[in-house]
Amino acid sequence: MRLDAAEARGRFLAHDHGAFCTLHAERGIDAVPCIYGSLEEDGEVWVGVPVDTVKPKSAGLLQRERNLQADPRATLLVELWDRDDWSRLWWVRAQLLAEPGPPRGLADRLADRLAGTVPQYRDKPFDRVMVLRVVSVSGWAASG
Amino acid sequence: MRLDAAEARGRFLAHDHGAFCTLHAERGIDAVPCIYGSLEEDGEVWVGVPVDTVKPKSAGLLQRERNLQADPRATLLVELWDRDDWSRLWWVRAQLLAEPGPPRGLADRLADRLAGTVPQYRDKPFDRVMVLRVVSVSGWAASG
Repeated sequence: MRLDAAEARGRFLAHDHGAFCTLHAERGIDAVPCIYGSLEEDGEVWVGVPVDTVKPKSAGLLQRERNLQADPRATLLVELWDRDDWSRLWWVRAQLLAEPGPPRGLADRLADRLAGTVPQYRDKPFDRVMVLRVVSVSGWAASG
Repeated sequence: MRLDAAEARGRFLAHDHGAFCTLHAERGIDAVPCIYGSLEEDGEVWVGVPVDTVKPKSAGLLQRERNLQADPRATLLVELWDRDDWSRLWWVRAQLLAEPGPPRGLADRLADRLAGTVPQYRDKPFDRVMVLRVVSVSGWAASG
């Protein structure tokens, strides 16, 4: 069954891991797993996607960052997957826009949020935090 | 570290669950969890994404099917996520093209594959199986 907007938004805010999808001009969709932090401020929901120094990756701007510079639209899919019990399944999908000029201090507050919720991020091992604004959240659950 | 093409392809073929992403003309990327079956034939890797009758959903064509009619490019992201032990993390991403005229009988062979690997699909509770061709697979793993 479809989740109403408030329920979908609540589940999105309560979770911190999903598939982060951006647009690549030629090949279409780039998708990578991500850990995210989110918070509500002044009626908007904001998402911080860290570029961390924990998992090995290439130097320079990530492809997902270059994608967002060319097209600011992104999608973050969060799901509960249970191979055995499909009555537990649910997912929520946030449509996002990268914000080049987010509110003052917001990237830091999202970094704080990540440090507080993800043990591996306690000491904020971030090169930077990408800030995106949630445009809408929708979702589905197998049961209520 | 980046996975080589053969390793990424092997992991993709060995798994059956991921985030299935298609393109929506206005909002950008639609992403939904999916269960998939895959097989190799004549040097190509094919993917079947079932429209099943197990999980409740709307009647008619799904949005992902309408998206593929307008733009055949899709992406399927598969990952191992472990909240506690990040040394186990890996993901693979397949770039796909929807194939309106796949090889004869392929949808049935993909349905057989799904019935053989997913217990809930043993009796093939499918309305239909979307058939996509794998264009490339890339991936990443925290350790070898």
